Amino acid sequence: MSATESPFENDPAFPLHRGGKIEIRPTVRIRDTAGLSLAYTPGVARVSSAIAENPDLAYDYTWKSNTVLVVSDGTAVLGLGDIGPLGALPVMEGKALLFKEFGGVDAVPICLDTKDTDEIIRTVVAIAPAYGGINLEDISAPRCFEIEQRLQDLLDIPVFHDDQHGTAVVTVAALINAARVTGRELGDLRAVMSGAGAAGVAVATMLIDAGIGDIAVADTKGMIHHSRDDLTDVKTLLASRTNRSDVTGSMVDALAGADVFIGLSSGSVPEEAIASMAPNSIVFAMANPTPEVHPDVANRYAAVVATGRSDFPNQINNVLAFPGIFRGALDVRATRITEGMKFAAAKALADVVGDEVRPDYVIPSVFDPRVGLEVSQAVAAAARAEGVARL
Amino acid sequence: MSATESPFENDPAFPLHRGGKIEIRPTVRIRDTAGLSLAYTPGVARVSSAIAENPDLAYDYTWKSNTVLVVSDGTAVLGLGDIGPLGALPVMEGKALLFKEFGGVDAVPICLDTKDTDEIIRTVVAIAPAYGGINLEDISAPRCFEIEQRLQDLLDIPVFHDDQHGTAVVTVAALINAARVTGRELGDLRAVMSGAGAAGVAVATMLIDAGIGDIAVADTKGMIHHSRDDLTDVKTLLASRTNRSDVTGSMVDALAGADVFIGLSSGSVPEEAIASMAPNSIVFAMANPTPEVHPDVANRYAAVVATGRSDFPNQINNVLAFPGIFRGALDVRATRITEGMKFAAAKALADVVGDEVRPDYVIPSVFDPRVGLEVSQAVAAAARAEGVARL
Repeated sequence: MSATESPFENDPAFPLHRGGKIEIRPTVRIRDTAGLSLAYTPGVARVSSAIAENPDLAYDYTWKSNTVLVVSDGTAVLGLGDIGPLGALPVMEGKALLFKEFGGVDAVPICLDTKDTDEIIRTVVAIAPAYGGINLEDISAPRCFEIEQRLQDLLDIPVFHDDQHGTAVVTVAALINAARVTGRELGDLRAVMSGAGAAGVAVATMLIDAGIGDIAVADTKGMIHHSRDDLTDVKTLLASRTNRSDVTGSMVDALAGADVFIGLSSGSVPEEAIASMAPNSIVFAMANPTPEVHPDVANRYAAVVATGRSDFPNQINNVLAFPGIFRGALDVRATRITEGMKFAAAKALADVVGDEVRPDYVIPSVFDPRVGLEVSQAVAAAARAEGVARL
Repeated sequence: MSATESPFENDPAFPLHRGGKIEIRPTVRIRDTAGLSLAYTPGVARVSSAIAENPDLAYDYTWKSNTVLVVSDGTAVLGLGDIGPLGALPVMEGKALLFKEFGGVDAVPICLDTKDTDEIIRTVVAIAPAYGGINLEDISAPRCFEIEQRLQDLLDIPVFHDDQHGTAVVTVAALINAARVTGRELGDLRAVMSGAGAAGVAVATMLIDAGIGDIAVADTKGMIHHSRDDLTDVKTLLASRTNRSDVTGSMVDALAGADVFIGLSSGSVPEEAIASMAPNSIVFAMANPTPEVHPDVANRYAAVVATGRSDFPNQINNVLAFPGIFRGALDVRATRITEGMKFAAAKALADVVGDEVRPDYVIPSVFDPRVGLEVSQAVAAAARAEGVARL
């Protein structure tokens, strides 16, 4: 099928994507022989020699200090599942576009022609030297947990699986403000979550660390509790830290009397279940493009409703987090992104809303120019406080 | 050592390199929610799904069609040798800069943290899907030969080791014109070459294919001939195709009566050896930064003198070849770069000089705006003629 005969061009997404969404641009111009002999041979040899002598100088005299890899194996792309490395590429280019627009971070898409955990780790380690950070993207659970952990152990630059931690940061920020606007603290809240994939596990873990009253998580087989014998290692760990009341059975049953629903699955929640929640409930229905419960329905019962969609109030969008988090980490040449840095990002994001908080405004717009700056400064300060900053 | 205290800033190459020489830039702007929902979710999902269905569409709707990887393991960087992946990075950024300035090609530097042949091949194959070509750079011989060959066998995009083929293309172009300006054909010439590394092997091979009368090659142990028992596989093959008169001994002895000297080593050639060459001799002393014989000395005896330096006439510079070669290959979505495409590039480059040829003008300036266009069109046409073009 040739480009010019494409049947897709009636959909505006396709002409916008033609030729890709990012490019490489020189930051210095070569106008004459003198310029060429500084930017390339023989001048570049002096810079290369200095870096070979002292590799830390790469942060000063190459693009490493501002550049991250966006790495995917194409196994869990948006809601599309395993669509392979080329199918994933438009999403990774989009991520690179957002990194630059919202964080001033240069990001290079790497779409891997392998799904093997060891091979992915080996490949990323081999190509990492020229880059200041690794953003893992759309890699399916549970492999994503091991890949992130082992890469972070092997590398001295931040390794960050955005589907986990970006989602967690923005969700925690929104929940801080949702609690506030309904007159409660995180510690007062009992939450029920649908979805125990990469995002679900990270959100639950971060909420526990942030001091939520309790959270119980459901996977496709129902509530995760310590007596289940079909749990992966990650879910077993989750069972030990969540669901204090040891609720069993279905997620719908668990919602009765709950303060918070967090949807990170592709399922749906019946209206009756939302109606059965505690007064002043908080509903984050983040499945995309179809929320677990429609916001118009949820609003009949809940005090605060958020989704992943841009056409309703309170959009929980990772774009609010990852550009500023990497901006802050790169600015101080952080070696990793710690729990403290993530929580600082969530707090900074919640604070952008601040006293303007309303039920339909618990999280800022992605176009709010304060977001990137506030998040990056909070992350950089936390990195210094936690001793993972080189600058 | 912190950036602000750098002792290097008196050398203008260092301030020019601060922060690197390339960046990632969006080619579409996201001004509002509507734009975001086309470039990213949900719009991008439709593009990703279409590509997952028909991977060829990646050439239309991602940056693959215009983007190559510049891959090095840092083992043979300029004349500096094995300076590692970070030492190599300024050179690879420089290459990316030149790719864009002179060919409009987006190029991403990959500096590998491994020197293992199998590991390099595995890594490049794993990251190749998002890219339209692979430019190998500054990988030491003899590993570079195997790496290029095996990668080209495994991938359906061009794999091109520029130190070999870029040098060969420009050298052949210059020699075509040097022969012409001295009233001879390539077939009339007997050449002696110093250097049997990546560039030397490629130049000798291409000159034989182009029909040179004879060429004899010297490595550090003297002339390569079929009776030597210390030859690598590549040099054994070279011995079978070169040195028809079976010259043994030193390169200096071999130069007596030779028409052409081609220097691709870091050694030096005594004035007497140049004086001993045939009348109307041609001297290409391409060692950088110090030519094997100074052009002022060579000019006392030779009819045509070329070097790798920009401060003398007739600069043999790969920048004349690789941007146009990849431009042409990408324009027709070539699956490889054939011998025919390389020879077409050399011929096109020689033809830019055309009838203006003079002893001090056998090769165009890198700033001649005709170069990229002429080379790319010739390469694209050759790719079509040889059946390796997708368009």
